[in-house]
Amino acid sequence: MNVVGELINSSRKAIAAAIEAQDTAAIQKVAKDQFEAGAHYIDVNAGIFVGKEAEYLKWLVKIVQEAVDLPCCIDSPDPKCVEQGLAVHKGTAMVNSISLEKDRYYALLPVIAGTDLKVVALCMSDDGMPETTEARLKIADKLINNLVQHNIPIDNIYVDALVQPVATSDSFGIEFLDAIQVITANFPGVHTICGLSNISYGLPNRKFMNQMFAVMGIAKGLDSLIINPLDKAMMASIITAETLAGRDNFCCNYLEAYRRDAFVW
Amino acid sequence: MNVVGELINSSRKAIAAAIEAQDTAAIQKVAKDQFEAGAHYIDVNAGIFVGKEAEYLKWLVKIVQEAVDLPCCIDSPDPKCVEQGLAVHKGTAMVNSISLEKDRYYALLPVIAGTDLKVVALCMSDDGMPETTEARLKIADKLINNLVQHNIPIDNIYVDALVQPVATSDSFGIEFLDAIQVITANFPGVHTICGLSNISYGLPNRKFMNQMFAVMGIAKGLDSLIINPLDKAMMASIITAETLAGRDNFCCNYLEAYRRDAFVW
Repeated sequence: MNVVGELINSSRKAIAAAIEAQDTAAIQKVAKDQFEAGAHYIDVNAGIFVGKEAEYLKWLVKIVQEAVDLPCCIDSPDPKCVEQGLAVHKGTAMVNSISLEKDRYYALLPVIAGTDLKVVALCMSDDGMPETTEARLKIADKLINNLVQHNIPIDNIYVDALVQPVATSDSFGIEFLDAIQVITANFPGVHTICGLSNISYGLPNRKFMNQMFAVMGIAKGLDSLIINPLDKAMMASIITAETLAGRDNFCCNYLEAYRRDAFVW
Repeated sequence: MNVVGELINSSRKAIAAAIEAQDTAAIQKVAKDQFEAGAHYIDVNAGIFVGKEAEYLKWLVKIVQEAVDLPCCIDSPDPKCVEQGLAVHKGTAMVNSISLEKDRYYALLPVIAGTDLKVVALCMSDDGMPETTEARLKIADKLINNLVQHNIPIDNIYVDALVQPVATSDSFGIEFLDAIQVITANFPGVHTICGLSNISYGLPNRKFMNQMFAVMGIAKGLDSLIINPLDKAMMASIITAETLAGRDNFCCNYLEAYRRDAFVW
């Protein structure tokens, strides 16, 4: 499982305040905590700061990489901000995200074409958000083929099939899960990734529901998640689901996690 | 989700003692508790009592059905015992189980052919336990076709694809899960069922692992489980997974379970 630590996001009040105050220590602590909890990428997002997003994003990339030996996931819908974040990034970043939306697609493509960047390919187009498995597959198919044609290796592509709230429509959970399954089956080597919080929007017990959805995603082939790695119940669920999905040689990760006693089972 | 309450099983010490003492009240309490917790069938098993299994099974069926208005799941590998249990059963029982093992198959087939009984079809043959998805599918295919030819409607068939310990082989979890998926896809209308405890055999945190495996099964199409319905964490997981699998109109079950505050999230 590729874990992208989601906590350094300006939509969170404490993070927004730390960014505004340029509180290096506060941000670096969150980066370190996520690293120690098992994150493979540190998401950095300064999206709420209109006009200052690029500047803050650069600052975040710099101070995060001073604190931890991890790549960042540069999280912005604005290709210009992504480009500036990349300019100061050391090593191979993840870019979150390109989509089929024309403006975003054509602006970001030259930035990522022919690079070895990891690219989140969001299943969104100018026709709006896909609701069915088929609609997701159609967008994923175009995105994957286009990106591969522009010399982005398929195993650097992370398709985000776009989680939508099950409270809005009964089928929104299973349509997403089935999309993971067909995308994984149709495009060998491609990765699938998602955030989870949308699934439980409007419902109680959101943490638990998000956790169950992650486990169901893993059963369907999901191999990357944008989550809070400090959530010990979530991490326990993911480790266990990976073992059950045949991704844990001799159950070593599971047993090691058990022995460390670091999770909530 | 069809929940078969597994607690009245003679492999459990307290149950064996209650059976031997013919303690009607003790058995009936376990039946009632499972009914109240949401079981749709009450499994009855007297398998440890060699020579007395049929007699005890009949007694269990009678006293369970006196206590709760539910059908039993008559759980024995011995077709003669199943037949005697059925003789005293009111309403439509579930039979657990027929398999492709020749002796069992030919002895049980005449008992169930042309009836409206629910039949657990265990993916086991005289060649032993299947390990791969393909081996399971091959047995399931034969069993389903044979049973349908003997006038058992496909939606009365509950395929048990046979859970095996992930500690024995890394792939044993995913091979089972993928079997659920292909059996569900290839035989519309058929049900899939399993017990869970084998999956975690030899590992720590078994309850939690069983719970995660149930959730993964539901993502793959599993619609029936032989479980302890008094396990509130398990029931919470199942209810949530069903909602996420598109089996809960307007999230009603999920919200109702939340409001009752009867589960552990």
